[in-house]
Amino acid sequence: MAIDYSVYLVTDRGILDGRDLLKAVEAALIGGTSLIQLREKDISSRDFYDLAVKMKDLVNAHNVPLIINDRLDIALAVDADGLHIGQDDIPLGIARAIMGPDKIIGYSVSNLEQAQYGEENGADYLGAGPVYATGSKADAGMPIGPHNLKTIKDSVSIPVVAIGGVGMANINEVKQAGVDGISVISAILGRQDITEAAKTITAIWKAK
Amino acid sequence: MAIDYSVYLVTDRGILDGRDLLKAVEAALIGGTSLIQLREKDISSRDFYDLAVKMKDLVNAHNVPLIINDRLDIALAVDADGLHIGQDDIPLGIARAIMGPDKIIGYSVSNLEQAQYGEENGADYLGAGPVYATGSKADAGMPIGPHNLKTIKDSVSIPVVAIGGVGMANINEVKQAGVDGISVISAILGRQDITEAAKTITAIWKAK
Repeated sequence: MAIDYSVYLVTDRGILDGRDLLKAVEAALIGGTSLIQLREKDISSRDFYDLAVKMKDLVNAHNVPLIINDRLDIALAVDADGLHIGQDDIPLGIARAIMGPDKIIGYSVSNLEQAQYGEENGADYLGAGPVYATGSKADAGMPIGPHNLKTIKDSVSIPVVAIGGVGMANINEVKQAGVDGISVISAILGRQDITEAAKTITAIWKAK
Repeated sequence: MAIDYSVYLVTDRGILDGRDLLKAVEAALIGGTSLIQLREKDISSRDFYDLAVKMKDLVNAHNVPLIINDRLDIALAVDADGLHIGQDDIPLGIARAIMGPDKIIGYSVSNLEQAQYGEENGADYLGAGPVYATGSKADAGMPIGPHNLKTIKDSVSIPVVAIGGVGMANINEVKQAGVDGISVISAILGRQDITEAAKTITAIWKAK
């Protein structure tokens, strides 16, 4: 399965206002979302597993890879396409050793040292940010801004996805940094018409 | 490493009243605790991993196996001796497939159907309960009592450990059920002198 990082959706049931997560993700996939990361906190392992099984079927049916956030056990249990880990998760090198060479592993970074570490320890791509202030992730830390995003992108040879506060208003600024894609939550899932939002964001990203 | 289920300590930092968990477990090991399960909720994966690395060194240095509760990823990442899962965790058969045939897998059950399922799907032992009412685990469910504990024990050929409200006052009643060991939290970690509590419980368990 080819990996297209262009419009990378991270899930967050908290902003769905009661709407069904699977239906919301399906709407985003119809709109052109190219990669899905299932991110769940405060959920039992069994509930996470059950949801991930359904999510994998849905996402793969659209020829899109499914990445699991943080929980390597869930990624293995549902044979997900990859795992995304951050600084508060299990060490990258250990995740790579357990997942094997073929699964996608993403790594969240917010500075050059972390980016270097990620590239040297087996990450397939980096999620760099938060680029802008964001309400979607309480523990996201201080925004790094588009200039530092570019510095990170220029320092590594693996793909870099911009994350944190990225939406319609700043996609073009983010593109200037030369990154391989944008990771969004609320810019798609926070909209009433999710398919339309995904289409618009994909179109802006792909415009020359 | 031989598995001795006789006095099986499950950790709970909530009842330590600020005391250090590693020191508390060391005190319990000195007192004769035969098996340790590291159970953590509401902690980042990295903090769980870092704690589990230290716990494994400590526990294995006493020739005691370390079992990780729920989190198969942490068990794999620190190469723990085993994993304990319950009804709210990833499915038993999947855990066995990922962990391989050699790691210890324990399974929490509260009725005969679950016990049968556990034996048939790769559990090495069952944690049966809660036998009595307990304050240590909020989601433990209704007590099954010593009679049902015996029924569960008699229905399977794998070892059964009694869990839930087991302490000095009822060890002899639990022994009558013919189980292979007792799983305790507060009866050891809730005491001021943890080594002494572990010694006393071990002595009562081992007395004819």
